[in-house]
Amino acid sequence: MHIICLQENLKQALNITEKIIGRNLTLPILNNILLNIENNKLKISSTNLEIGINYWVSGKIEEKGSITVPAKLFSDFISNLPNEKIELKVKDNQLKIKCKNFKANLKGLSADDFPIIPKIKDKPLIKIKASILKNAFSQVVEMTSISESRPEISGVYVMFDKNIIKLAATDSFRLAEKNIEVNSNSLKSQSIIIPQRTIQEIVRIIGEKDESNQEVEIILSGSQILFDLGYTQVISRLIEGQYPDYQQIIPNNLETEIIINKKELINNIKIASLFSGKVNDIKILVNPKKSLIEISSQDIDIGENKSQIEAEIKGKEVEIAFNYRYLLDGLNNIFSDKVIIGLNDNIKPVIIRPVGDLNYIYIVMPIKV
Amino acid sequence: MHIICLQENLKQALNITEKIIGRNLTLPILNNILLNIENNKLKISSTNLEIGINYWVSGKIEEKGSITVPAKLFSDFISNLPNEKIELKVKDNQLKIKCKNFKANLKGLSADDFPIIPKIKDKPLIKIKASILKNAFSQVVEMTSISESRPEISGVYVMFDKNIIKLAATDSFRLAEKNIEVNSNSLKSQSIIIPQRTIQEIVRIIGEKDESNQEVEIILSGSQILFDLGYTQVISRLIEGQYPDYQQIIPNNLETEIIINKKELINNIKIASLFSGKVNDIKILVNPKKSLIEISSQDIDIGENKSQIEAEIKGKEVEIAFNYRYLLDGLNNIFSDKVIIGLNDNIKPVIIRPVGDLNYIYIVMPIKV
Repeated sequence: MHIICLQENLKQALNITEKIIGRNLTLPILNNILLNIENNKLKISSTNLEIGINYWVSGKIEEKGSITVPAKLFSDFISNLPNEKIELKVKDNQLKIKCKNFKANLKGLSADDFPIIPKIKDKPLIKIKASILKNAFSQVVEMTSISESRPEISGVYVMFDKNIIKLAATDSFRLAEKNIEVNSNSLKSQSIIIPQRTIQEIVRIIGEKDESNQEVEIILSGSQILFDLGYTQVISRLIEGQYPDYQQIIPNNLETEIIINKKELINNIKIASLFSGKVNDIKILVNPKKSLIEISSQDIDIGENKSQIEAEIKGKEVEIAFNYRYLLDGLNNIFSDKVIIGLNDNIKPVIIRPVGDLNYIYIVMPIKV
Repeated sequence: MHIICLQENLKQALNITEKIIGRNLTLPILNNILLNIENNKLKISSTNLEIGINYWVSGKIEEKGSITVPAKLFSDFISNLPNEKIELKVKDNQLKIKCKNFKANLKGLSADDFPIIPKIKDKPLIKIKASILKNAFSQVVEMTSISESRPEISGVYVMFDKNIIKLAATDSFRLAEKNIEVNSNSLKSQSIIIPQRTIQEIVRIIGEKDESNQEVEIILSGSQILFDLGYTQVISRLIEGQYPDYQQIIPNNLETEIIINKKELINNIKIASLFSGKVNDIKILVNPKKSLIEISSQDIDIGENKSQIEAEIKGKEVEIAFNYRYLLDGLNNIFSDKVIIGLNDNIKPVIIRPVGDLNYIYIVMPIKV
């Protein structure tokens, strides 16, 4: 292998691909990145056996070939070089690097031992604006469960139907659901579960190069999904299993509805959290007569506190307790100035959603106190 | 105790005082902050038994008194409140806090059990611009030793003499020395050792409120030092012991002198560090004939690298090895574009100093390889 390319391009490629690589002591090749000449470009690939990333770098190809080198070291070395031409050359399982006044030899491992990243050739299911996908993914991804006992809720549920892509994520204490409307009207009705880490990587990778017109193609193939951004591809396994029928917990009728300033609510919850107990519990008293809610918390060792916020309230007085972290997670994924909180009593699920946007809802279970 | 003050002032006071407080499980009162009405102001005090900080907050005093409350919680609570009037009132060993729509009761401990922070009434030794002191301290403080076997080098050596304050710090592998010229011409010749943590706190506190004309008074009293900024005071114990006679290791004659671009040198050292071995060793070859230095490093497991930088060199060819961290620590505390490196051979101490500033020198010992 022998290629000349620009530092800036190589740096970006390594930045995108290197992040999924951990520290694997039993299988050292998993700490490496694969360099390979393919279709007259330098293809850089990484994998953690669940997700694979390919990134194509343009350059002047002098000789075909391939090698794998330690990802972290190679990436750190390249990103500190000046933005000039870089020459990469493989000789005796070493990668020789030259750039201006810098020279290095990096010991590599044979490309033959690198795990195969599946090639997916199926037809795209849908093409969608990258920024829309990124924003939607980031509004739900942190609500997935990290427990390994129920793998099906450790990922984001994605349902395609006609002109809607519906995303949902839950850890059984709270749930977020997001609808994306797409231009296609003929999405075959089907659903998949994508691992949390894959969603996080897609959010990160699109964020690295956030161009307004960038599009991403989604391709399904058996138990694999491919996100194709053109310059880079992310291939991931899907999670098998039946996603819980979460629709049943979304309340249809709401006895009490509160419209309240989101920033103020977040701030007062944060303050109350300082005095909350071991289960992160804070109490909310909904007072329709005075048009305000009262947020309070106490801990026998440290003390107590109380604050009030004005709100538009329709319905009846309720006192209800929450894990403050779950409230904050939901509120921080809502981008309107005001939010609507809908509830029935102090044990049934509560809905939080943005004012003026029907495409996002957040459901949270109260705490029994 | 009963006082009304502004959130913004109280927040700043807590921010300055709270940082030295750790998590003390055996003596819970050390996790607390002392509130006390003194001279018609609210005096806030913290201590870790080595350093004490006092900070005075103006306000409307309704009733004298005192209490101690958990520092971290109190500080977090106050900093999240709106910038409005805050009422603080002590009742039954609790601190009652009111601010707009917020109310809290914080359980406290009696002020009688709070450790005494010494009051120092001696005459100031010197008054100096706070920013000058801060910058000088920060140029030497990280070179102190963290080993506890030689307490005298775990602090910064400060020598007063006529119109000079000389600072020095070393961990026996490298040393930094900084001279500050002051307006006084009559400093009594004396020297002290100030704990590293105290110096770090002074740098932090001055940095929090960096006003160009702020002055600080330094007062010595027995084994204590007081830094008085007016609105706040830092009192610290001094370290007893004899500081090593470091002057003898500063070389007088230099056979080889290199003048080189600092930024380029830092960058190339960082790159070489990626391939350095267990003792962080990198090699520098000084080549006067070609007017360049060559920086290289290698590790049998990962590979090797080499880079060159143009430099003005007077003297002879030398190959010398360093711990790259020590080189970077020195270079990062030099603020000129070019630096002078002076050396004799590959075992004697090496001097690094800014071009055009005789008040700072950094000495580093080479590694034997």
